[in-house]
Amino acid sequence: MSEENSSEKLCIILFSGDLDKAIAAFIIANGALAMDMEVSMFFPFWGINVLRKERPPRVVKDFISRMFGWMMPRGASRLKLSKMNMMGMGSAMMRRLMEKKNVMSLPDLIRTAQESGARLIACGMSMDVMGIKMEELINGVELGGVGTFLGEASEAKTTLFI
Amino acid sequence: MSEENSSEKLCIILFSGDLDKAIAAFIIANGALAMDMEVSMFFPFWGINVLRKERPPRVVKDFISRMFGWMMPRGASRLKLSKMNMMGMGSAMMRRLMEKKNVMSLPDLIRTAQESGARLIACGMSMDVMGIKMEELINGVELGGVGTFLGEASEAKTTLFI
Amino acid sequence: MSEENSSEKLCIILFSGDLDKAIAAFIIANGALAMDMEVSMFFPFWGINVLRKERPPRVVKDFISRMFGWMMPRGASRLKLSKMNMMGMGSAMMRRLMEKKNVMSLPDLIRTAQESGARLIACGMSMDVMGIKMEELINGVELGGVGTFLGEASEAKTTLFI
Repeated sequence: MSEENSSEKLCIILFSGDLDKAIAAFIIANGALAMDMEVSMFFPFWGINVLRKERPPRVVKDFISRMFGWMMPRGASRLKLSKMNMMGMGSAMMRRLMEKKNVMSLPDLIRTAQESGARLIACGMSMDVMGIKMEELINGVELGGVGTFLGEASEAKTTLFI
Repeated sequence: MSEENSSEKLCIILFSGDLDKAIAAFIIANGALAMDMEVSMFFPFWGINVLRKERPPRVVKDFISRMFGWMMPRGASRLKLSKMNMMGMGSAMMRRLMEKKNVMSLPDLIRTAQESGARLIACGMSMDVMGIKMEELINGVELGGVGTFLGEASEAKTTLFI
Repeated sequence: MSEENSSEKLCIILFSGDLDKAIAAFIIANGALAMDMEVSMFFPFWGINVLRKERPPRVVKDFISRMFGWMMPRGASRLKLSKMNMMGMGSAMMRRLMEKKNVMSLPDLIRTAQESGARLIACGMSMDVMGIKMEELINGVELGGVGTFLGEASEAKTTLFI
């Protein structure tokens, strides 16, 4: 993990909730982890959806948050492509092609990144605005703010906004 | 401001004219300013729209520039979400939610960033192509080119393309 | 080219296949090259489409790859705007405006970048998933993976995900 060498840290801010961008982010993250780099990923706005559990526990929410929660994709296996989604056909095709070509699925990429030591940090302000609670996110996710992100970025050699 | 410590500069290139991305950019910028970092923001392409005055003075333009000017959102309070805009309903909902949760509105975020010393640099080439004049932009914006941006980026610890 | 000064490298990962983002990427790249910086560009996912030849040789493909190849824009002169494409009208207007304002077209920007020494690296995994072959890409493009990109990024002063 080379704690002493700050230049070997990669910081990714995954703003997007698109399937293709989330896959790209986690392929880069896993590549960096395989090269022994430290990886911190920050999830604001739509990126929060990437971290949602498929079957979250019931939580109390006001009407508007419940509506937002319904409309946004719940978790990594329900995200859509940013282009050529074609009512889900494109996204299904992309998932099939990746499987055929032996590329890990997004949920597997996320699991592998976590197991290899990536820090996944959900943006508290975004969760508050969208009415998403910690219990609705996959296990092992930390809570943070823009200060957390800026701290990580200042230690990173490379920071990507995706 | 730590003029002597170049590693404490954040550079943001806001290419997008989407409400959500503009909010993210200015929340990060204001966070960095609060942490005493220098912030330079560069606005090419659709990002120019973020800087437009709501009520610009009349300027002489050719037909195609006038058309472009009409079709693009005029200023920070008219931008739309990149996702779930739903004919403006989503954007209005997001603005309402942010207010309810005490997150500053985009025009306030921009004002605060300017008052805290952020440099806002409009891309001259983009303004020329889209037919936008300096008088149509909010006060305090500088004019620059890709060289200006690369110069700022070379001094920055972190550069984000949003 | 300042081989000895690693701080003078710019690394761009062009994930997007949108006309406006590709233009932005190559304007920044050419600006950096003009300032004597080294430039490495990596093309995963939709970015691959930017590198496609308009008239590629016939290559053997399975049905799904052939379908993907048909649906995606073939090369720099067929890309569309990310916003206001309006069935191609917006993209045509943008191309016309750029010509009128003496901004180089995307194919010219790419050629100039290549002639000035930019490395263009196509992502092998993306090509495999989308069923695009090396012969279908413009000349002078290298093949690489996420490791190649991370290596370049670790030497770069600035890395942009576009």
